Amino acid sequence: MDARELEKIKKLFQPEVIAVVGASKDPKKVGGSIVKNILANGFKGRVYAVNPTAREIMGVPSYPSLKDIPDKIDHVVVSVPADKVLDVIEEAGKLGVPVASIITAGFKETGRADLENKLVETARKYGLRILGPNIFGVVYTPANLNATFGPEKVLPGKIAFLTQSGALGIALMAWTAMEGIGLSSIVSLGNMSDLDMVDLGEFFAEDPNTRVITMYIEGIATGRGKSFIEVYKKITKKKPVIALKAGRSERGTKAIASHTGSLAGSDNVYEAAFKQAGILRANDVQELFDWAKALASLEKVDVKGEGFVILTNGGGIGVMATDASVFSGLPLLDMPEDLKAELRKHMPWFGSAANPVDLTGQAKAENYAGAFQALLKHPSVSGVVVLYCEVAFLDPVELAKSLIETHKQYNGAGKPVVVAMVGGERTREALKLLDANGIPSYPIPERAVKSIATVYRYSQYLSRNQ
Amino acid sequence: MDARELEKIKKLFQPEVIAVVGASKDPKKVGGSIVKNILANGFKGRVYAVNPTAREIMGVPSYPSLKDIPDKIDHVVVSVPADKVLDVIEEAGKLGVPVASIITAGFKETGRADLENKLVETARKYGLRILGPNIFGVVYTPANLNATFGPEKVLPGKIAFLTQSGALGIALMAWTAMEGIGLSSIVSLGNMSDLDMVDLGEFFAEDPNTRVITMYIEGIATGRGKSFIEVYKKITKKKPVIALKAGRSERGTKAIASHTGSLAGSDNVYEAAFKQAGILRANDVQELFDWAKALASLEKVDVKGEGFVILTNGGGIGVMATDASVFSGLPLLDMPEDLKAELRKHMPWFGSAANPVDLTGQAKAENYAGAFQALLKHPSVSGVVVLYCEVAFLDPVELAKSLIETHKQYNGAGKPVVVAMVGGERTREALKLLDANGIPSYPIPERAVKSIATVYRYSQYLSRNQ
Repeated sequence: MDARELEKIKKLFQPEVIAVVGASKDPKKVGGSIVKNILANGFKGRVYAVNPTAREIMGVPSYPSLKDIPDKIDHVVVSVPADKVLDVIEEAGKLGVPVASIITAGFKETGRADLENKLVETARKYGLRILGPNIFGVVYTPANLNATFGPEKVLPGKIAFLTQSGALGIALMAWTAMEGIGLSSIVSLGNMSDLDMVDLGEFFAEDPNTRVITMYIEGIATGRGKSFIEVYKKITKKKPVIALKAGRSERGTKAIASHTGSLAGSDNVYEAAFKQAGILRANDVQELFDWAKALASLEKVDVKGEGFVILTNGGGIGVMATDASVFSGLPLLDMPEDLKAELRKHMPWFGSAANPVDLTGQAKAENYAGAFQALLKHPSVSGVVVLYCEVAFLDPVELAKSLIETHKQYNGAGKPVVVAMVGGERTREALKLLDANGIPSYPIPERAVKSIATVYRYSQYLSRNQ
Repeated sequence: MDARELEKIKKLFQPEVIAVVGASKDPKKVGGSIVKNILANGFKGRVYAVNPTAREIMGVPSYPSLKDIPDKIDHVVVSVPADKVLDVIEEAGKLGVPVASIITAGFKETGRADLENKLVETARKYGLRILGPNIFGVVYTPANLNATFGPEKVLPGKIAFLTQSGALGIALMAWTAMEGIGLSSIVSLGNMSDLDMVDLGEFFAEDPNTRVITMYIEGIATGRGKSFIEVYKKITKKKPVIALKAGRSERGTKAIASHTGSLAGSDNVYEAAFKQAGILRANDVQELFDWAKALASLEKVDVKGEGFVILTNGGGIGVMATDASVFSGLPLLDMPEDLKAELRKHMPWFGSAANPVDLTGQAKAENYAGAFQALLKHPSVSGVVVLYCEVAFLDPVELAKSLIETHKQYNGAGKPVVVAMVGGERTREALKLLDANGIPSYPIPERAVKSIATVYRYSQYLSRNQ
């Protein structure tokens, strides 16, 4: 993609001026909900509405048509009935608008490929790029932009999420916010009449606000397979990409065909494409964001040292994490004597300085901090898996604060660190605090281990390819 | 085990009289925390404390020694220093106490097998059964008994949980309560000097308050392997048993040896034992309780019909659930025409009455209820996986209420049902409500599918073995 086209896509996410065509005063209607969401997130650019009768909508100046807007529009959001969309695109094209997101449904997905083709033809004539139709919109948190009819609030962060499923995408907007997963962007791909995951990937590869690209996909458009592989081969050398591809089974593939009307193609083809392109493949939504969270916690993925260390206050979860490490290919460090000696200072005599390092159930926050510091500082240690079972005399929030403090002070090297804490409400609070402070944390040891193993796997991929 | 011995174990869980030796007025001390927890849960039996000086502890009458207690003691909780335990056991034995739970640590696990052997010898002399030493205690919710130093509150339910890890067990007391997982019992197995998972399994097999037996184990004592297989072979024909066994990898097995001091044995041996005994094996804590929840939701596991049906408002999660069904061996129903015709009444024209049944993003609670009812009533349907992506115009809590209502009215047949909902805080609330009403529910479609697949798997096992 040349720089000019990339510049157009940029306007989708960082418009100075956005116009919502089909805006409504009713926030329960799609065209009202979009305006409400744009305003609620404190978008810094200028906003206009297009509505046949209104003079203003929620305080936003409203005009009868795009051409009446006395400003240079960067991004047009289209939310008018399907039979009116073509006129809007024609008008936007004439005005030289670079990009449009078309919310409206009722095109290819309901058998009206003819209508959709006309849209694309018209847009091409003017060099206007289209996202959609049949989408729920676009979120870009660095610009405080939420031009969707989904939930109002999205947690800002470094993960971009592209989704071919509308319902899932909207549900995940709320889910990620609740789970403390920060996003730079959410993009509803819809029918991909023009822009698709290949074009958007090129944008996010260059986007300084995005560290990890994630996607839920059901199928790549016919004829785009080769570009997909070529473009993502380049992207994955800069940033990790994780895909969740539905239709892994034959029956699943058939289900896609029946609900999108498109041929999904055998899963083997996708598996091979992901492999060729260096894309990490997650098995479900939880894994997708578990991994993304761990990868997004690092400014630069570059694993050094000789192996990872598990630090725990419970023997049982230490063993389970050991199992998970072995099965997910995470190399565990054979502990050097000097490190063992240092660690022994932070545990009772019946603790263990082997790997897993067992501080025992008597461990206090300062014991964790001391051992954690020793691990962050030792050059043989590649990264740390911190585990904690909730016990009455070590408050998980206090422990979280101490880990955050130590991490800030001693992790200049940017070693990957994950935390898993098993416990009740207070533990949940501690996990949230860790996440909010950039330490990826999980309620189940195995999820933490698999996530840091993905960081390791990606780092290995980078070494092989640079 | 003969009836008399079983009667003794029963006293562990349903004592009329319980005595805490080493009770303390300080609720932060182990001996105080146990008394506090017994009282806080409204235990209906009589409670006594033993303390050298106190006359009462938290309102409980206290005596200098067991023999001073003017009552017939069923269960003695021992929480005195390791060197005093033997005297207490001797005294309890003389008094004819049937069972003791020994909280105190500092025996075999710290190299003092000699001390532990003496305890067992003494207890045997009197026919006194021992749980422990080195345990955090016992919970039995049907008797409102929480004789542990763990969290005060445990959510009552139908799942018994035996654990060889103390730290994990205590952490899971809080975790299960938070996650809405109801337990009939938690048993800390500790050093298993006398009672172990074999003896306790025999109790829970007969316990009318327990539907599912779950366990976290690290190793079965030498010489108990054969009994384990024989006893559990019988139990699993009555009730499902799920085991989480740490040390699946060689390195994990070594880690067990280092933290328990016992030889754990190769994982292959355990894998074979579980298979022979008909025990379901979970891979992590989440899976253990995901499956248990689904199994515990049914009074009787007896899957009929010709296949399972997925009901959804989102195509994407429908496909993912289809994939998960295929990979976890859940047979999906090829929809009969009459059922399709009935389902079509509850969806717009662009919905799908194939399997997955797609009500589309426009589905309202009454559409779900109508379709759900049709599935529960149709004889070909073995069970239902209900999926929901949070959308603005269908409140998840309203949907949950409607599903609960329909389930109550039309699920006389006891078909397995699971629900997965993806969304934010309001969805989390809906999931809690469903769980509290006996419909197992999950935040991730794959977890729901794998759980109902376990119900199916167990039902198949029963058919083969009856």
